[in-house]
Amino acid sequence: MLTVKAYGATSATDPLAPLEIERRDVGPNDVLIAIRYAGICHSDIHTVREEWGPITFPQVVGHEIVGEVAEIGSAVTKHAVGDRVGVGCLVNSCGECEECLDGDEHLCANGNVGTYNSVDVDGTITQGGYSTHVVVNEDFVLRVPEAIPYEKAAPLLCAGITTYSPLATWGAGPGKKVAVVGLGGLGHMAVKIAVAMGAEVTVLSRTDAKKDDSLSFGAVRHVATGEDGALESLKRSFDLIINTISAPFSIDAYLRTLRPHGALVNVGLPPEALELHIGSVIGGRKALAGSNIGSIKETQEMLDFCAEKGIAPETELISADQINEAYDRTVAGDVRYRFVIDTATL
Amino acid sequence: MLTVKAYGATSATDPLAPLEIERRDVGPNDVLIAIRYAGICHSDIHTVREEWGPITFPQVVGHEIVGEVAEIGSAVTKHAVGDRVGVGCLVNSCGECEECLDGDEHLCANGNVGTYNSVDVDGTITQGGYSTHVVVNEDFVLRVPEAIPYEKAAPLLCAGITTYSPLATWGAGPGKKVAVVGLGGLGHMAVKIAVAMGAEVTVLSRTDAKKDDSLSFGAVRHVATGEDGALESLKRSFDLIINTISAPFSIDAYLRTLRPHGALVNVGLPPEALELHIGSVIGGRKALAGSNIGSIKETQEMLDFCAEKGIAPETELISADQINEAYDRTVAGDVRYRFVIDTATL
Repeated sequence: MLTVKAYGATSATDPLAPLEIERRDVGPNDVLIAIRYAGICHSDIHTVREEWGPITFPQVVGHEIVGEVAEIGSAVTKHAVGDRVGVGCLVNSCGECEECLDGDEHLCANGNVGTYNSVDVDGTITQGGYSTHVVVNEDFVLRVPEAIPYEKAAPLLCAGITTYSPLATWGAGPGKKVAVVGLGGLGHMAVKIAVAMGAEVTVLSRTDAKKDDSLSFGAVRHVATGEDGALESLKRSFDLIINTISAPFSIDAYLRTLRPHGALVNVGLPPEALELHIGSVIGGRKALAGSNIGSIKETQEMLDFCAEKGIAPETELISADQINEAYDRTVAGDVRYRFVIDTATL
Repeated sequence: MLTVKAYGATSATDPLAPLEIERRDVGPNDVLIAIRYAGICHSDIHTVREEWGPITFPQVVGHEIVGEVAEIGSAVTKHAVGDRVGVGCLVNSCGECEECLDGDEHLCANGNVGTYNSVDVDGTITQGGYSTHVVVNEDFVLRVPEAIPYEKAAPLLCAGITTYSPLATWGAGPGKKVAVVGLGGLGHMAVKIAVAMGAEVTVLSRTDAKKDDSLSFGAVRHVATGEDGALESLKRSFDLIINTISAPFSIDAYLRTLRPHGALVNVGLPPEALELHIGSVIGGRKALAGSNIGSIKETQEMLDFCAEKGIAPETELISADQINEAYDRTVAGDVRYRFVIDTATL
């Protein structure tokens, strides 16, 4: 066992604080990663505050992890000491179900092992990336291309793949009109990736506050949906909408902004039941869909795509003692566009 | 103008009755069809009873039309006198919008001209197929292969294409598990077509009453969804569900029966707002979609497919004076599986 430094939660209500956690010994198929940076995802906050249900404390979160390989197990073939690597939202899966055999580990029929707050193969609770080191099975470790600075790579492991996957799956590309709802951590990556794929991108945001940012990320248009009649004026406009917002919304109203054969794909997760009329998908043969991260293979594809296209998230680098403040600012939407923790400050 | 015999509605409440209607003269691009048979679709009933809004009377409905070409216009190239032909749900479209130019006339941005109860290019209200003759632009006339008996071809023009299109679009085929919800006019065609495409088909019906029919149409399983726990037992079972029912249903419960990447495609149209949780499409990356008939090209493809595979609807042939009784029986679900009117009895 390795004892390593971390920053985590001891209850749902106390601030996060420095603590020490154990990492398992490096097994034959494991990689020990010396973590350099870890991104802060809104999911981290929902988890430690028990907004998604009770958890086991202490809990270290963080599933946007980058660093260097410090040690490898005897059977490891994919990574070498010194490699630039990353870990995203999952660190294991059953490997035997139809989905795993199809390379869809993130959809594992037996439930994949999340990077934190999951029961690991050894029965312990997984602990995430706000830490100096982590031990991960090599199959769940991504290569981080040289072209992407470490600090910028971290948010790609969650925000990047979460938006890349539906954009790729639903055909964003030249000649396609894509709308991105919400310009936050996920949304700003969706804009950059969709633009890099060649699509014409519109940002749908509640206000005009981030209009300049939208345009600087390559969007051709920013629409303030909080203004009367804004959505109605967009009837039959888009081939694909990526909705990154977790607040309730009118499904029917957004479906009306789609062109025939269009899809409204949700990566934000409002907890409430929402209403829709089936006629909204029948007219124009539309789809309401959802997407949830991506496979390991697709995550690697996304990293390589971002390196090739020279795109990266907007980040604000913080030290460990700023994590609690960063949480409050993330909840308030006061971040442009992703906090990244420098783990050297742990 | 041609004066022809028909059977139609003079009010929303009176029974349908014999009447005479006018058909336009055969224009350069028109085909005059001597109608042999016309299918009865539930939409016909909704329309004449004004359940979908007020209409102009008298109104002759029917959009499952087959017959022979009796006369062609001077510029017609696609059809010749004596050809076996059919007409489905639409008889014209703008021809200029992006959808029309893409061959998606049924999704015409300016609204296509329906076979009945639509404003035609000459400003008159279109009159449907419960009639001896109809004049239609040649581009909206389908070829009926010799292998399909006239009487059997009629329901394919609506029930056939309505189910073929989503099955083809969403990839029904070998290795795919398809569920069909509801075994009526649409549902029984969905089963036959999905089986012919090579999919493994399950029928989800409220009771076991039609179980023998399901199996005779090629389904491997018939599940009575009205029984406690039936849907729950089907978790993660299907790649594709075609829902033909127009009654409210639990979207979440049906989405749970899908495998990852699965789609629930609705061709039935419940008028009420329904509820769903966005989490039901995010988990497993699923889609809730709709489909509405199909293009002229796809309708021809469907007719050719049915001819090649030797599949046809189950029909009950009736004379014109049985139409009102057939309406009542259709509403009561007492038809196996489609009424077809012999227009020689008009």
